[in-house]
Amino acid sequence: MARLYHVPLSPFCRKVRLSLAEKKIEVELVEERYWEQDADFLRRNPAAKVPVLRLDGMLMAESAAICEYIEETRPDPCLMPKKPAERLEVRRLVSWFDDKFHHEVTSKLLYERVNKKMTGEGYPDSSNVKSGAKAIKYHIDYLSWLLDHRRWLAGDNMTLADFAAAAHLSSLDYISDVDWNRSAVVKDWYAKIKSRPAFRSILADQVPGFRPPSHYADLDF
Amino acid sequence: MARLYHVPLSPFCRKVRLSLAEKKIEVELVEERYWEQDADFLRRNPAAKVPVLRLDGMLMAESAAICEYIEETRPDPCLMPKKPAERLEVRRLVSWFDDKFHHEVTSKLLYERVNKKMTGEGYPDSSNVKSGAKAIKYHIDYLSWLLDHRRWLAGDNMTLADFAAAAHLSSLDYISDVDWNRSAVVKDWYAKIKSRPAFRSILADQVPGFRPPSHYADLDF
Repeated sequence: MARLYHVPLSPFCRKVRLSLAEKKIEVELVEERYWEQDADFLRRNPAAKVPVLRLDGMLMAESAAICEYIEETRPDPCLMPKKPAERLEVRRLVSWFDDKFHHEVTSKLLYERVNKKMTGEGYPDSSNVKSGAKAIKYHIDYLSWLLDHRRWLAGDNMTLADFAAAAHLSSLDYISDVDWNRSAVVKDWYAKIKSRPAFRSILADQVPGFRPPSHYADLDF
Repeated sequence: MARLYHVPLSPFCRKVRLSLAEKKIEVELVEERYWEQDADFLRRNPAAKVPVLRLDGMLMAESAAICEYIEETRPDPCLMPKKPAERLEVRRLVSWFDDKFHHEVTSKLLYERVNKKMTGEGYPDSSNVKSGAKAIKYHIDYLSWLLDHRRWLAGDNMTLADFAAAAHLSSLDYISDVDWNRSAVVKDWYAKIKSRPAFRSILADQVPGFRPPSHYADLDF
């Protein structure tokens, strides 16, 4: 069986979990205290990051590379369009979330509020939290603008771009950092993706010391 | 003709330039003062980042997405292997450089020494510079370890992984931040890639206010 070394609230791990679940690839989840950098973990991934996936007899690192590999070896159901121009748009949006959104929002909210406590690095830096709380508004507005023109983020079909975005937003929703009232189309899009069977394991996550709000796992939030 | 909105020392722009040049796609280079965030630029890329490539009637953002697009539409000469496991390794290493190396080294050295001056953000933070100068040693050792086992970074053939790595290292070499004496195999690898015709435009870059060391453009450095 596949095995994923992960951290429950990591959006990069969640993106891989969504991709595996959507393709009905069973996976054993192993929590990794990556910040302790023990020798076994560094052997699995010298980059000292999660996710690390054991699949097809290999150890795989880097969520973007892992998702492309899963897509190439298990193309059904398909999370990546066929045309190069459409694939470009999916990959642009995956990078938007995993780079820009991560830098401006996730690292400023989730990492300050949760990771710092978990890894013993101390208290949240309030200027970071403030900056993340401000930036997420602009990102929701951008999502809203995309969804005014498209059924899913990158076009007519659900793709890895939707999973990348939902992975970040779901982690932030766990700590009540998403204002779902800001945009009806974004809320509708998230309700659609949240109700997929692939999302169940993510809605069942429990992180000791952090209790999610009641709407977190509610499909009619 | 293709047009690339870029910044000469940006490793993300250099990776795209290398990929275009290797495939003999002519491109007009337009320097973009991305930090001024003017309206035209934001229309081209709402992420407000370079590179932005105009090609095939589209405006493209995000260097990883752009390079995959070029690869899919201009597969010859090939910079990406055919087998999924080998493609995984190429993409893992591209992420290694564009995420981990960028975070630990490029942003600590190049951005402190050059970008801050260019954008008027002030003086380098010496603790960042120190941390980047320390981290680059470990990265060169990792490259060295890979090249003890392989002809090119990801395997037997030159790939996007080599271009990602060479893009970062060449930008740092412009400000004399690479110790080429640390590893003979890394130096040999860089000499091989530096002598390719695709590298010429990068070796000819001149950034006002920053003069490269004499070995920068020397093929026998």
